[in-house]
Amino acid sequence: MAKRKLIYDCDPGHDDAVALTLAAGSPELELLGVTVVAGNQTLDNTVRNACHVLQWLGREEVTVYGGCGRPMVRDRVTAGDIHGKTGLDGPVFPPLRKTPEQEHAVSFLIRALLASDGDVVVVTSGPMTNLAMALRMNPEIAGKIQRIVLMGGSCTNGNVTPAAEFNILADPEAAHICFTSGRPITMIGLDVTRKVLCYPEIVERMARADTRASRLFVDLMGHFCKTQKEVFGWEGGPLHDPVTIASLLDPALVTVKPMNVRIDLSHGDSYGRTNCDCFGYLGLPATADVAVDIDVGRFWDIIETGLRRYD
Amino acid sequence: MAKRKLIYDCDPGHDDAVALTLAAGSPELELLGVTVVAGNQTLDNTVRNACHVLQWLGREEVTVYGGCGRPMVRDRVTAGDIHGKTGLDGPVFPPLRKTPEQEHAVSFLIRALLASDGDVVVVTSGPMTNLAMALRMNPEIAGKIQRIVLMGGSCTNGNVTPAAEFNILADPEAAHICFTSGRPITMIGLDVTRKVLCYPEIVERMARADTRASRLFVDLMGHFCKTQKEVFGWEGGPLHDPVTIASLLDPALVTVKPMNVRIDLSHGDSYGRTNCDCFGYLGLPATADVAVDIDVGRFWDIIETGLRRYD
Amino acid sequence: MAKRKLIYDCDPGHDDAVALTLAAGSPELELLGVTVVAGNQTLDNTVRNACHVLQWLGREEVTVYGGCGRPMVRDRVTAGDIHGKTGLDGPVFPPLRKTPEQEHAVSFLIRALLASDGDVVVVTSGPMTNLAMALRMNPEIAGKIQRIVLMGGSCTNGNVTPAAEFNILADPEAAHICFTSGRPITMIGLDVTRKVLCYPEIVERMARADTRASRLFVDLMGHFCKTQKEVFGWEGGPLHDPVTIASLLDPALVTVKPMNVRIDLSHGDSYGRTNCDCFGYLGLPATADVAVDIDVGRFWDIIETGLRRYD
Amino acid sequence: MAKRKLIYDCDPGHDDAVALTLAAGSPELELLGVTVVAGNQTLDNTVRNACHVLQWLGREEVTVYGGCGRPMVRDRVTAGDIHGKTGLDGPVFPPLRKTPEQEHAVSFLIRALLASDGDVVVVTSGPMTNLAMALRMNPEIAGKIQRIVLMGGSCTNGNVTPAAEFNILADPEAAHICFTSGRPITMIGLDVTRKVLCYPEIVERMARADTRASRLFVDLMGHFCKTQKEVFGWEGGPLHDPVTIASLLDPALVTVKPMNVRIDLSHGDSYGRTNCDCFGYLGLPATADVAVDIDVGRFWDIIETGLRRYD
Repeated sequence: MAKRKLIYDCDPGHDDAVALTLAAGSPELELLGVTVVAGNQTLDNTVRNACHVLQWLGREEVTVYGGCGRPMVRDRVTAGDIHGKTGLDGPVFPPLRKTPEQEHAVSFLIRALLASDGDVVVVTSGPMTNLAMALRMNPEIAGKIQRIVLMGGSCTNGNVTPAAEFNILADPEAAHICFTSGRPITMIGLDVTRKVLCYPEIVERMARADTRASRLFVDLMGHFCKTQKEVFGWEGGPLHDPVTIASLLDPALVTVKPMNVRIDLSHGDSYGRTNCDCFGYLGLPATADVAVDIDVGRFWDIIETGLRRYD
Repeated sequence: MAKRKLIYDCDPGHDDAVALTLAAGSPELELLGVTVVAGNQTLDNTVRNACHVLQWLGREEVTVYGGCGRPMVRDRVTAGDIHGKTGLDGPVFPPLRKTPEQEHAVSFLIRALLASDGDVVVVTSGPMTNLAMALRMNPEIAGKIQRIVLMGGSCTNGNVTPAAEFNILADPEAAHICFTSGRPITMIGLDVTRKVLCYPEIVERMARADTRASRLFVDLMGHFCKTQKEVFGWEGGPLHDPVTIASLLDPALVTVKPMNVRIDLSHGDSYGRTNCDCFGYLGLPATADVAVDIDVGRFWDIIETGLRRYD
Repeated sequence: MAKRKLIYDCDPGHDDAVALTLAAGSPELELLGVTVVAGNQTLDNTVRNACHVLQWLGREEVTVYGGCGRPMVRDRVTAGDIHGKTGLDGPVFPPLRKTPEQEHAVSFLIRALLASDGDVVVVTSGPMTNLAMALRMNPEIAGKIQRIVLMGGSCTNGNVTPAAEFNILADPEAAHICFTSGRPITMIGLDVTRKVLCYPEIVERMARADTRASRLFVDLMGHFCKTQKEVFGWEGGPLHDPVTIASLLDPALVTVKPMNVRIDLSHGDSYGRTNCDCFGYLGLPATADVAVDIDVGRFWDIIETGLRRYD
Repeated sequence: MAKRKLIYDCDPGHDDAVALTLAAGSPELELLGVTVVAGNQTLDNTVRNACHVLQWLGREEVTVYGGCGRPMVRDRVTAGDIHGKTGLDGPVFPPLRKTPEQEHAVSFLIRALLASDGDVVVVTSGPMTNLAMALRMNPEIAGKIQRIVLMGGSCTNGNVTPAAEFNILADPEAAHICFTSGRPITMIGLDVTRKVLCYPEIVERMARADTRASRLFVDLMGHFCKTQKEVFGWEGGPLHDPVTIASLLDPALVTVKPMNVRIDLSHGDSYGRTNCDCFGYLGLPATADVAVDIDVGRFWDIIETGLRRYD
């Protein structure tokens, strides 16, 4: 069976790191490149973190492209309280040998997509700036994207403001551009990612895999769950980002419902809200497949399988 | 024990009619007057409906005041599909003898509140136009309001747009004025009212009370549940408005959480959303007591008790 | 010839006081009442100022009605730097005998308009709160208004923010309500009122009239021109408000152009701007007669005639 | 004396074509490249027009880079009624030999600016999309821009909506990015460009120069003035764009005033307005040098000199 071609755009970030582990190690996926954006931390930090993770995993051949260091229109929003000073506090990495490519992430997205047969899935698990900039620089790439899969948004309420989820709030205009690109798009938002809570027993289970990947997972989750508890008071942190990659590996993992989704661009209290018309009140055409449920047991099985792919 | 003084502002409306039944029949409450607003239907219809209900119940001495026929700033929103052509389709009422007072609802609110000892609860179960207009015409009345209790809003998503609940969307500016009046305010929104679904067995249970009030209830719910099913596909219609009055009769009925609430006034996609900071993300002071849970069994007991108060 | 019936809504204010002098002394006008709003100063101050001016002029029989003390939706904006601590700094008035009526300005507007034959002009020279509130409380009054004439707005730029003129910015929602009432409306904005600058030679000319009205004018302008110079650096202060009353006395005074006008309600940087489609770009129907030119010489003649009406 | 280094970003367009004539022919300027954006017409048309003009002028060595075909966030706005079907209706050009570069305008801007000594002026006379995209892709280029000079905006009212001028309205978010880049910026808006009206006698005067450039000018103005008259009813069309290049050639041409400028991003009626605080109402720091006056005689001298530079 043909591998599924993938570009993964992220801002590692603890949960991005787990998603990257899945993306770089799954034989079902062909990872064309990793594009990095500022979000959970500054661009310098997120690029360095992506390189650290790939080097640790022994996947240094995966190319990393630095992208946009700030959102398209709005001022920066940061999330340093969850991911720490480096954006990936917790693991102690060996000195960094791996370096990012010279090419800008936006240029890479354009080049790789134009060169493709239209069979590339673009997954984003941070602010959608890089993909949106690429779509605006060269609108022809839209036709080359098979599907966009994003972690972001919420049908109900947010996790940074009462209205907005972090990845969307961090660049609402970029999200708007991606949601109106005309290509199929799957929104994996807080409605499902809040259900995959990484409790201590999950960490213990993954520790038993005893691979370099599982050891990284354990170190990452140690910090992540601690800060989730300090900031939100929750026992287990929600492992948002890996749901995107996991959903590619198992189409039955996530239940989606097509609905009309519009991003609030008002710059007011609801700026960055994903207004998802779950009940079809507006009578408008569906524009996105929104994840409404997830098989939690299956999710952890996918994670474990992913961690065991490594030696 | 002293009766609790109450002004009830409503736009009947099937569920308002049930709330009015409770308000006009409960010995624990002293209903100072009923003020009526356009909302579920035009003002002419909602005023007539309030009179019909009180006459049917034998409570013609309760004064009814017609108020504002349209929202403060925005254009009209109507909800005719749920409540029918009259706003109270279903029951067949005898010819109407009862007439509303000459005084405008806004003038009555000002006069009654100024004359009070500051011990009046104002309950609204429609757009908040009348109370907001009164607060702006005479800001001194704020000090005379013990508490505002409203049916409206949502911590998650709406019932007219993905962002907004009907009563707030129908006059967001009025809601903003009431929420910033400086007085204690209890928001009873969709988060709890969607839990009190009037299933057929509930209607049967209330029918057994066999009072004029229960017969009205049965006729009202016959139409209400039918249209809820047609419009939303739900088996039992949510009995939104009576939760307000019921919460006065039993303080333990509803669990509230103090939080910062701001109304979206952007005129954009999220116009009319109640941005409720359930998790305290914004670090702002709490401005409202928001109902987050309800004891459903207790609610139906209160309704039954209310219906049995009548002969 | 029949007198023209007039209700004058104002927030005195130095230029309002001159307008009031014209309105209360011109035999061509029948002044049905003066309604007062907060704006240039708090409501207490503007009501007291209206009474002071009428008492000084010997027109104590003109009724004064206190109205709204704050805008409909937005927070208060004040203009204390131009009009001083009392809102009418400059003249020394004798002890105040005249008192305002008990009736609220909004109630008076509704009552007087409903009782009229539809031949009443409503002139506003402050925030349009009172008239807007009356229109929303009782929409039937719209049909009774012959025309609304307001001082406010601008086709170009504002005098409080780059976008907005004070009277509109002080209550944009009220202006929106009045501009969409469906009645003829004449907007007299900064485009013409900035042309009637009260230079020292004008003050000297009016001083020669030597009536109680001209003496008041001289005292008012002494303070007004001084603060205009301090705040804006201008030699002569623009006598905004009297242009409204003067335009009733001489239809040829002001040149108007019908155009589509929409009030910016965005709560952003342009909040309160009167977007006047002078060039018809939008292809929308005209909604207001906007003053685009004024005969300055004729204006000062009208003022002088008005001041000489008094003894 | 050293030549002034220049990148010229445009959407030709009749007045852009005149500006390009000045930019490509003036010995005081070193034109590093011409970047093209959609605006007056689609990108295909504006790129082709830039090539046509340079070929006609015998300046084929000047490189042309195609850029963004649509605005960053908002939907497209077009101005086809003024510039005709090709965007440059009027002149009959010989078959096109000159081709644009392969490199994207945004990439060129980044590469050329990074390679520079920080002495490059970037002039834009269309929507500011290309420069804004470059600033967001690589924020380091800001430090390399000596000054941005743009044709766009207005201190008073617009030319497409009552609030907004075309170039800003066509991409308000891009303008916002450029105005907040931290670099010196000169805004040459309608306040001055509406004063340089190309009356028939101007066209006759330029015709007498009898160079290939003046012949192009005559052909361009024939169409431009005709449509200006048809659309706006004006005898002479305003030659907006060349004021930018002319202001580089003669620093005394335009009088500027530093002021705070903010772009309206509200998506409402005032979307795209340049809120210029001419009178310093807001007490905020100046952020742009805004052209407030122009020496019209000197402007036409510069144009004539420019046209005579060619054979």
